[in-house]
Amino acid sequence: MAKELTPQAENYSQWYNDLVIKADMAENSAVRGSMVIKPYGYAIWEKMQAILDGMFKETGHQNAYFPLFIPKSFFSKEASHVEGFAKECAIVTHYRLKNDPEKGIIVDPDAKLEEELIVRPTSETIIWNTYRSWIQSYRDLPLLINQWANVVRWEMRTRLFLRTSEFLWQEGHTAHATRQEAISEAELMLRVYADFAENFMAMPVLCGVKSPNERFAGALETYCIEALMQDGKALQAGTSHFLGQNFAKAFDVKFVNRENQQEFVWATSWGVSTRLIGALIMSHSDDNGLVLPPKLAPIQVVIVPIFKKEEEFKAITEKVGSLIKDLKSKGISVKYDDRDTHKPGYKFAEWEMKGVPVRLAIGPRDLEKGTVEVARRDTMEKEVLLFVDIADKIENLLERIQKNIYQKALTFRDDNTFKVDTWEAFTDRIEKGGFVLAHWDGTAETEQKIKELTKATIRVIQFNTRSKPGSCIYTGKPSVQRVVFAKAY
Amino acid sequence: MAKELTPQAENYSQWYNDLVIKADMAENSAVRGSMVIKPYGYAIWEKMQAILDGMFKETGHQNAYFPLFIPKSFFSKEASHVEGFAKECAIVTHYRLKNDPEKGIIVDPDAKLEEELIVRPTSETIIWNTYRSWIQSYRDLPLLINQWANVVRWEMRTRLFLRTSEFLWQEGHTAHATRQEAISEAELMLRVYADFAENFMAMPVLCGVKSPNERFAGALETYCIEALMQDGKALQAGTSHFLGQNFAKAFDVKFVNRENQQEFVWATSWGVSTRLIGALIMSHSDDNGLVLPPKLAPIQVVIVPIFKKEEEFKAITEKVGSLIKDLKSKGISVKYDDRDTHKPGYKFAEWEMKGVPVRLAIGPRDLEKGTVEVARRDTMEKEVLLFVDIADKIENLLERIQKNIYQKALTFRDDNTFKVDTWEAFTDRIEKGGFVLAHWDGTAETEQKIKELTKATIRVIQFNTRSKPGSCIYTGKPSVQRVVFAKAY
Repeated sequence: MAKELTPQAENYSQWYNDLVIKADMAENSAVRGSMVIKPYGYAIWEKMQAILDGMFKETGHQNAYFPLFIPKSFFSKEASHVEGFAKECAIVTHYRLKNDPEKGIIVDPDAKLEEELIVRPTSETIIWNTYRSWIQSYRDLPLLINQWANVVRWEMRTRLFLRTSEFLWQEGHTAHATRQEAISEAELMLRVYADFAENFMAMPVLCGVKSPNERFAGALETYCIEALMQDGKALQAGTSHFLGQNFAKAFDVKFVNRENQQEFVWATSWGVSTRLIGALIMSHSDDNGLVLPPKLAPIQVVIVPIFKKEEEFKAITEKVGSLIKDLKSKGISVKYDDRDTHKPGYKFAEWEMKGVPVRLAIGPRDLEKGTVEVARRDTMEKEVLLFVDIADKIENLLERIQKNIYQKALTFRDDNTFKVDTWEAFTDRIEKGGFVLAHWDGTAETEQKIKELTKATIRVIQFNTRSKPGSCIYTGKPSVQRVVFAKAY
Repeated sequence: MAKELTPQAENYSQWYNDLVIKADMAENSAVRGSMVIKPYGYAIWEKMQAILDGMFKETGHQNAYFPLFIPKSFFSKEASHVEGFAKECAIVTHYRLKNDPEKGIIVDPDAKLEEELIVRPTSETIIWNTYRSWIQSYRDLPLLINQWANVVRWEMRTRLFLRTSEFLWQEGHTAHATRQEAISEAELMLRVYADFAENFMAMPVLCGVKSPNERFAGALETYCIEALMQDGKALQAGTSHFLGQNFAKAFDVKFVNRENQQEFVWATSWGVSTRLIGALIMSHSDDNGLVLPPKLAPIQVVIVPIFKKEEEFKAITEKVGSLIKDLKSKGISVKYDDRDTHKPGYKFAEWEMKGVPVRLAIGPRDLEKGTVEVARRDTMEKEVLLFVDIADKIENLLERIQKNIYQKALTFRDDNTFKVDTWEAFTDRIEKGGFVLAHWDGTAETEQKIKELTKATIRVIQFNTRSKPGSCIYTGKPSVQRVVFAKAY
C-alpha cells in the first residue's frame, strides 16, 4: 500500500486530494459531485457535531427537522434569494418509475408533479413558511431553532469536503421581536463559531462582516469567520446572517408586540458544514499526512506493540492494559493496534497519515527498563519516557499539542498577513498568497473590478481594526478602513 | 389554547393525530407527505439516536455517509429490489431553474440530466456499488457500517411519524466473509433492536422472521420486531435483513478468502426510523396526552411553583435551586417552569400533554411544612412527600415508572394475544384486533388469500415458540407451527 503523498511544495492541490483519499476520509461517489464520507472522516464530523451541538444548546437553541423538498414557488418569494440559489439546484419532477418492455426501467411520464420540488440548497424559505403558524405573539419569540441536515447545490467543479453537490451542515434559523435582538443573535453565533474554530479546530480566524457583493442572498448583513490555508488562500469557515424582515415579509410572518400592534418578525440564519473538515486539513497537515488537534481526533493515542515472539506480545499487552484503562478514565480515546497482519513500520506510517496526535511504541526492552517511546504527530518528535505516571504525562502532552498546533497556525497567518498601499504591491501580494489588508473605496464596482483583475475578493471587513482612513488601492478614492483581500476557496 | 384530545375510545386514529399536534411533536408541511418534526418531537428522536448509536458502536459498527442520490440504473441491478422500491420514489431530472420573462421561475429544459437520479428510498445499491472498491480480501471483512440519514418513499396516504414521504432513519449495511457470519450479524442487530424497544421504549416486542411475502425486497430472510398498539393493530418497529450474496452479485463485490479464492461477499442491512416515535405514542399514551418512558423523556421532571406573591415565588425558587442541582448531578433532566405568563393549571395540563414522567408542585404551605406534591404521569397519582432526600425518591420513582409502563404494555399485549383454531374465530378475532396465533400452511397463496379476506398479514414467525404442528386456519393443510397474524400499521 503506497502511502506517499504528493509533497505540498510540489502541488498543494494534489497533496490535498491525495491526503483525503489516503487518510481514508472521503472519496468521490458514482453520483457526479457527491462524496462518500468514510468512517474516519465521518468520525471527525461527529466530534465536530457533538461539540457544536452542545454550544448551540448552551446558547438556548433547540433542534428540529424540516422537509428536504421545497416547492419551486417558495423560491420566487424572496427576490434576491432566488437569484442566489435557484440557479444550481436538483429538481424533482416525477414520483414514479415504471418498467418499459423495451427500455427497461424508465421515469413514468404519468407521474409528473404539478409543482416541481427543489432539493433544499438552504432552508430559509420552507422554514419561514412554517414559522408563519408558529409565531403569533411576542410570547412566541425568540424562536431559536437549529437543523442538522444534508443540502444540495449543484456544482460543476467539485473537491472533496470543500465543494460538493451534496454536503452535510447545520443551519440555525431564529426569529426575534426586534432588529437589535436579531443582530445580537447573529453576532453571538459568529462568536460561537469563532470559539469553535480557535479552541477546538486550533484554527485562528478573522471575524467581521462581508462586503455587499459577498453577502448571503437575502441577508442585510453577513457575518463571517475567515481562515488562512497553508497555501495562502482564504477559506470562509462559517457565516451568520442578519436577515432583517426580508423572509418575514416574503412569507407574511407577523407577531403582535407588547403594544398590541402587528409587526414583521426579525430573522437570522447561520451555518457551518462538512467544509470545516477541508479547513481543518489545510490548516495543520503536512507531507506525512493529516495533523489533527487532539480535541477533534477520533483516536487521540495509538499504542503499537513491538515484538517478535508471542510471549513478548502477551507481556506488552498485559503491561498496556492498565494504561488503556487510565487513559479512558481521563476521557482520552485510545487504540491498541494489536493487528498481527502488519509490521510496526507500516502501522507508524498509517497512524501518521491519519493524524493521531500521540503514538506510543513499546517493546521488550521497554518492559525491562520501564519505559515507553512517545511520538507526537505535530512535531514528529520522539522521546523515551518512564512508564511511571505515563497517563498524566500523555494528558499533559495532548494539551500542549492542541496549543502548539494553534500557535503554529497563528504564526503562519501572521507571517502571511500584509498591509499594502500601492496597486503594484497589491497585485504582487495577491499573486503570492496570504491575507492582504488594503484600502477600498467601499463600492461594489471597485470590488468587482479588483476581482476581475486579480481573482481576489474582500474576505472580511474586520470588527475593531482601529484601521485609519486612507485611499483605495485601486481607485485612489477615500476609504474609511482597510479590508482583508485574498484569493479564496 | 384548547388542549383536549379526541378520546381514544371515540376515535383512536383521530386521538393519535390530535396528540401529535397538541404535544407539539410534529406537523404536516407545505410539501405533500413530508412532515416538520418540531423541537419536542425531535428531542425524543435525539434521545433514541444517542442510545441506539451507542449500542451500534458497542457492537463494533462505525458511521459513514453515502450520497442522497442514486443513479437510476443502479436500481435495475437487483431484480426484486427494483420491484420493491423503484415504484414510488422522488426522481431528480434537472439541475437548474431559470427566469422566464413570461412564466417566472421555470425548470431550465437545457439542464436535463443524462441519467435521472433517485432520491434514496434505502441505500443498498449505492453502498454496495461503493463497497466494490473497499473490499478485496478477507482482511477487509467484516465491514460494519451504519448511516443516519433521511430517505424518501413517495406515499399517497401519510400519517405523522407512521408513514411519511420523507423520514429519518438509520441503516446498517454490513459485509461478511461467510454466510453464517452474516446471519449472526442480522440476528445480533435484531437483538439490539429488541433490547432498545423493551428496555428504553418500554415496549414489548415479538421477535422472529417475516414470511416470504413480507420480506424486504432483495433479502433472503427478514428478521423483525413487532409490537402491539393500543388499538389492537400491529406495528413493525424494526427489521434486520440477511441479504445473502444478492447485492454482492448485483454489484460484483468479491473478496479473496483465506484459501486464496475469489468469493462473493455476504451482506446484511437493518434499520429503524422516526416511525418508532409513532410506536412509542401508541404504546403508552392516554386521553390526557403523551406518556413517555423516563429513559426517553426529554424532560424527566418538571417543577411548577404555586404562588400569589412575588416573595413566595422567590422563596420557592430558592428552595428548589438545590433540588435542581441534585437531580442534574444524577443525570436527571429537570425543568423549572417559572413562566409568569401562565397559571399552574395550564402548566399541569401542558406537561401532562407532553408526557413528562414526574411533576412536582410546591407552594408556600409546602415550604412551611417541608413538603412537595409529586405527581406521576403514568398513573396520574399524586402524593405529598417530605422534601428530605427528595432527589433520591424521584430517582427511584423514575425507575418504577419505567418498569410500570413496560409492565402495563406487556399485560395489554398478553391480554390481546389469542390462539384460534377455526376460520370463524380467526375472522372474528382479527376484526376485533390483537395478535392472533394461528396455523398456516406455509404458502404465499394462502397468506395472500387471508390478507384479501381479512386485511390481516403474518406479522412474524416467532423464534422458539415450541408451537406444535396443526392444520392451516384457512386451507386445513398441515402446518409446522402457529404464526402471528394481525392487521397492521
